[in-house]
Amino acid sequence: MICGRTPEELIRDIQNFHGFSAPGLLIGAFMIDLAYQHLEKNVDICAVVETLHGLPDAVQLFTPCTIGNGRLKILDHGKFAMTIYDRSSSIGSRIWLDLSKTESYPLIYRWFMASAFQRRQSDEQVVRDIITSGHTLLSFRSVKVTRGKNRKKNKGIFVCVKCREPYCTAQGDLCISCQGKGYYQPSQTI
Amino acid sequence: MICGRTPEELIRDIQNFHGFSAPGLLIGAFMIDLAYQHLEKNVDICAVVETLHGLPDAVQLFTPCTIGNGRLKILDHGKFAMTIYDRSSSIGSRIWLDLSKTESYPLIYRWFMASAFQRRQSDEQVVRDIITSGHTLLSFRSVKVTRGKNRKKNKGIFVCVKCREPYCTAQGDLCISCQGKGYYQPSQTI
Repeated sequence: MICGRTPEELIRDIQNFHGFSAPGLLIGAFMIDLAYQHLEKNVDICAVVETLHGLPDAVQLFTPCTIGNGRLKILDHGKFAMTIYDRSSSIGSRIWLDLSKTESYPLIYRWFMASAFQRRQSDEQVVRDIITSGHTLLSFRSVKVTRGKNRKKNKGIFVCVKCREPYCTAQGDLCISCQGKGYYQPSQTI
Repeated sequence: MICGRTPEELIRDIQNFHGFSAPGLLIGAFMIDLAYQHLEKNVDICAVVETLHGLPDAVQLFTPCTIGNGRLKILDHGKFAMTIYDRSSSIGSRIWLDLSKTESYPLIYRWFMASAFQRRQSDEQVVRDIITSGHTLLSFRSVKVTRGKNRKKNKGIFVCVKCREPYCTAQGDLCISCQGKGYYQPSQTI
């Protein structure tokens, strides 16, 4: 069992949430499984992932930590690594896919080095190799999380003087969109 | 039915994923429901949310867009708003909780203005009012997404000369952690 699931259940849950059976999420499940083995039971956990790709979904699927509840932090460091830690002590495990351990699994090595952060298709043989390799490709060490544990506190709700929408980040009298720095243009009013 | 669910199923799914029946996720479900009413069927969609709080989880629960699959983008603009759009045309709907429509629901107004981005407890009466109010507190307009649609392309995999971990963001010869800008300190090697 990995994260309380059979490999088939794991793949089904990954497909349902992520859209396809991404090798990265499967490795992520083994990472989380390993982290849990070294945590006390019933600990209130938080997580940090070091890439935007794949791993955030593994954490959201297999732990209680999500972006929206503030218990998952995503860093765009481009590393296939995560830390799961005890919220009260800030101590936990950092786990990463250890390149030096992938010798016996050339397909995983190739997947990781060539396309771990680019390819979006599942690769059936890679998926099979990941399940076979289990935790053996992972390394971890005990760490203490020292930065960025808490989300910024908001300093109150402002109402934009132009669009009249409320916002809660200090942005001046106008919200970011009304400053012309938004991500959209009106298409038509419906 | 909201996002194909009864209110009870909606609350159950929110609790399972997010940890508690957050009012913000419930409003998010109505936002998504409204967006879908204005999209063509079988369209490949992407999403942008304008806050880190709550709404990212609503999108990940009730649409195929997640952080890890690259179809959800999160902007820290502090606005309770989202855009759901057709990936091929970039056209879709921006939806927001419209303060001017909350007059008949003082509890929702108060929840939103006092604590929408701060409080983490569910509020049963607020939840009931949200279900009663349905789509009536929302406004939306058709927009074209003009910026930030695609994730940065990675420029290859590098291996850090110090920790020997691979990374894929241009950071120099050392990865961010080995530059001393990481988020953790080693606690003990296990």
